Amino acid sequence: MNLILLRPDDMVTAERARLSGRRLQHVRAVHRAQAGDVLAVGMLGGRIGTGTVMQIDDSVLEMDVHLEHDPPASLPLTVILALPRPKVLRRVIFSLTVLGVKRIILVNAARVEKSYWQSPFLEPDVINHQLALGLEQARDTQLPQVLLKSRFKPFVQDELPALAQGTLALVAHPGARESCPRQVSGPVTLAIGPEGGFIPFEIDLLQTAGLSPVHMGERILNVETAIPALISGIF
Amino acid sequence: MNLILLRPDDMVTAERARLSGRRLQHVRAVHRAQAGDVLAVGMLGGRIGTGTVMQIDDSVLEMDVHLEHDPPASLPLTVILALPRPKVLRRVIFSLTVLGVKRIILVNAARVEKSYWQSPFLEPDVINHQLALGLEQARDTQLPQVLLKSRFKPFVQDELPALAQGTLALVAHPGARESCPRQVSGPVTLAIGPEGGFIPFEIDLLQTAGLSPVHMGERILNVETAIPALISGIF
Repeated sequence: MNLILLRPDDMVTAERARLSGRRLQHVRAVHRAQAGDVLAVGMLGGRIGTGTVMQIDDSVLEMDVHLEHDPPASLPLTVILALPRPKVLRRVIFSLTVLGVKRIILVNAARVEKSYWQSPFLEPDVINHQLALGLEQARDTQLPQVLLKSRFKPFVQDELPALAQGTLALVAHPGARESCPRQVSGPVTLAIGPEGGFIPFEIDLLQTAGLSPVHMGERILNVETAIPALISGIF
Repeated sequence: MNLILLRPDDMVTAERARLSGRRLQHVRAVHRAQAGDVLAVGMLGGRIGTGTVMQIDDSVLEMDVHLEHDPPASLPLTVILALPRPKVLRRVIFSLTVLGVKRIILVNAARVEKSYWQSPFLEPDVINHQLALGLEQARDTQLPQVLLKSRFKPFVQDELPALAQGTLALVAHPGARESCPRQVSGPVTLAIGPEGGFIPFEIDLLQTAGLSPVHMGERILNVETAIPALISGIF
């Protein structure tokens, strides 16, 4: 936790935050904070700054909060990701949040196992927890939006063309002829397939929706490695 | 498993491989291969090519093997990584292997918990298993070298200067003034700290050994996200 993420209802006055639960435990166990210590804080959806510990004990942490800076810039990027298996999903949501992605669309694909859509990791509370952990890691406050699209074809045919329009629209595909562009400055839409890749029919539909297949070299990267590698290469 | 990694003792004749155990189970359960199917194979430390299934049953897989291509190019990169906690270590070793890193040096640091050095995940068999899984993911055959340096100061003072010499030598450090260089073509030495970062004393020693501190932007990345992001940005 490199930043303590505050919510509006943590504020008991305009400048005084009162926390308990997970954040209190973390500040006690990891930061080992005492009265007078200054911690990095940020308001969910707002600015970042400092919190001076006024009181800390078993049950409550009170801080005087000053929010002076904007959070780090977001990436102008929409990631469309074939739903990974649940354990990987959790880490991938965290990683995308850390990297500054603000729109994540989880889609079905032929090589996505149907059971993944029943995972408890897809419940909004569980996703929101990963998003909060990612913001706390990256010292960010801007919550990403996560959308679930459990039907591939209607999403790609009816919604994706409008999303992709006006952006550099790419699908990462090990078999592609073109290599992934580097150091792009404008908005990007990036689709990433499941382990095993999108099938040819899906690549065709994605191309019709305006996405260009690009590769990352000869190596086939697992999704957890591919995501930061792609995003860091593109921006 | 995007490539079946063969070892010299799998070969019963010059062109015939006989497999059992984990690789057989995987080919049966995931590839669902039958006689006549052609699979991607590679010889540990050697070339890659195809294996034509001649026989497959509960106990054995036999393939006719033709090794026609060189494995993908390695990255001219030595990664010096503060030992992460054991679960993260496994994934990081896998990820570094997938990315094509061939020398990984795990070092101690002030913010590395001492207990991590007792982890069973550091045993050579466990590390070699992760390396093999990484090669199979990336379709590579060149086994990375993993070195353990449990004493930071002697390693950095006595060994690192010679390793860093003639390379672009960097330490990823969120507080650095310079941003991480992009699209480098020569050899690189890259040090990555623990969660929480290297302490100032360690940064000083690394600088004396010839490494320049560089940052990755305002965000603080977790080590699993930072590694592919750094490597993909640099190369």
